[in-house]
Amino acid sequence: MTEKKKAVVLLSGGLDSATVVAMAQADGFDVHALSFRYGQRHSVELDAAERVARQLGVKEHKIATLDLRLFGGSALTADIDVPKDRDESAMTADIPVTYVPARNTIFLSFALAYAETAGARDIFIGVNALDYSGYPDCRPDYIAAYEKMANLATRVGVSDTEHPLHIQTPLIDLTKAQIIAAGTKLGVDYSLTISCYDPDPAGHACGHCDSCLLRKKGFREAGIDDPTPYQQGA
Amino acid sequence: MTEKKKAVVLLSGGLDSATVVAMAQADGFDVHALSFRYGQRHSVELDAAERVARQLGVKEHKIATLDLRLFGGSALTADIDVPKDRDESAMTADIPVTYVPARNTIFLSFALAYAETAGARDIFIGVNALDYSGYPDCRPDYIAAYEKMANLATRVGVSDTEHPLHIQTPLIDLTKAQIIAAGTKLGVDYSLTISCYDPDPAGHACGHCDSCLLRKKGFREAGIDDPTPYQQGA
Repeated sequence: MTEKKKAVVLLSGGLDSATVVAMAQADGFDVHALSFRYGQRHSVELDAAERVARQLGVKEHKIATLDLRLFGGSALTADIDVPKDRDESAMTADIPVTYVPARNTIFLSFALAYAETAGARDIFIGVNALDYSGYPDCRPDYIAAYEKMANLATRVGVSDTEHPLHIQTPLIDLTKAQIIAAGTKLGVDYSLTISCYDPDPAGHACGHCDSCLLRKKGFREAGIDDPTPYQQGA
Repeated sequence: MTEKKKAVVLLSGGLDSATVVAMAQADGFDVHALSFRYGQRHSVELDAAERVARQLGVKEHKIATLDLRLFGGSALTADIDVPKDRDESAMTADIPVTYVPARNTIFLSFALAYAETAGARDIFIGVNALDYSGYPDCRPDYIAAYEKMANLATRVGVSDTEHPLHIQTPLIDLTKAQIIAAGTKLGVDYSLTISCYDPDPAGHACGHCDSCLLRKKGFREAGIDDPTPYQQGA
């Protein structure tokens, strides 16, 4: 029996990364999922990550603790209000206040350490250039530059240039509706996931932040019932 | 009065990074020093980092906690013996067991978050291509790739391409003796620093690991008295 190829998948507990886990598995990878406890206001997303990892049967799930609050600068980790009920032009016009400085760069760097020690050559990240055009670290040219750097940073890049590391971004050009349709076909249970920037302590979504609005619209456009547990009245 | 330009400097408490702090200051930067509590076996290096930061009068010193032991794989964070009394050809032949997977990539990523929130455009790191040729993430092409990625990862890179981020590596081509000579001229007190991979709990250097041997040789070649506190008999 040959060993299955391994991939490290960044898993936030949101809709996108849950879909990525299922896609990596469909591509034949044993998934080593990696989540972060990074001082986010809502730790309910880690509960969601664990539920998703269990439902999809990942090979291993590690949670790294790090403190991004040390540097401040984001509504997701600092005491800045999450904007509500914005229209889509406002969402995509600027870099949002929910942007965490260098977050994907930090997350990918941990994934790189994990990949190197686990013997994985593929790192999956659920970035999306359409819905999150305001985040600099969700763009294809950023990912390409990261991949190039990663291959120079590691033993693998030095000693085995025939099997380079790949940063895989299967969602990068998909709409939210396409992501939901693909994940539903692969058996992802989206009721286990949470996308909300401002959930209540029980994990119910607010229904009004940018992330909730995009998610609702995605289910609507995909023609699939939205199983998200929302707060009363949301 | 115009504000001084700011730099983030990675400060380990070792000889190299202490020298880099002094060099950044000599270049006119207010130094924002960044150290890590990353599961290293010897936390005495953080004490050294604090002593160095105080002696050199940095503007700010932050210590980020993260757990690199989560992934294992290095004598610096796992339970692997640090090699002793090796000759120099053995030190530089392979990637050493003291290599921590993706360590510089992770450290630089935190420095990038710090730089972005502090408004710094320069990140200094004391990598050296001569003494540490076995570490993939100490090579100039790695640093260049990191810098390119960093400018695509951040608000600065997106919105102000006229003032890009720079990863500065003032030690990259220097011998240990040249580093020591330069730092001594800039007033670095090397008795406060610790380079040893295997110090005792009081912070005395073992005198026999690769790092101690290179450091001893550096002082000898620079013709400067070695102020390192060594363990008895080392």
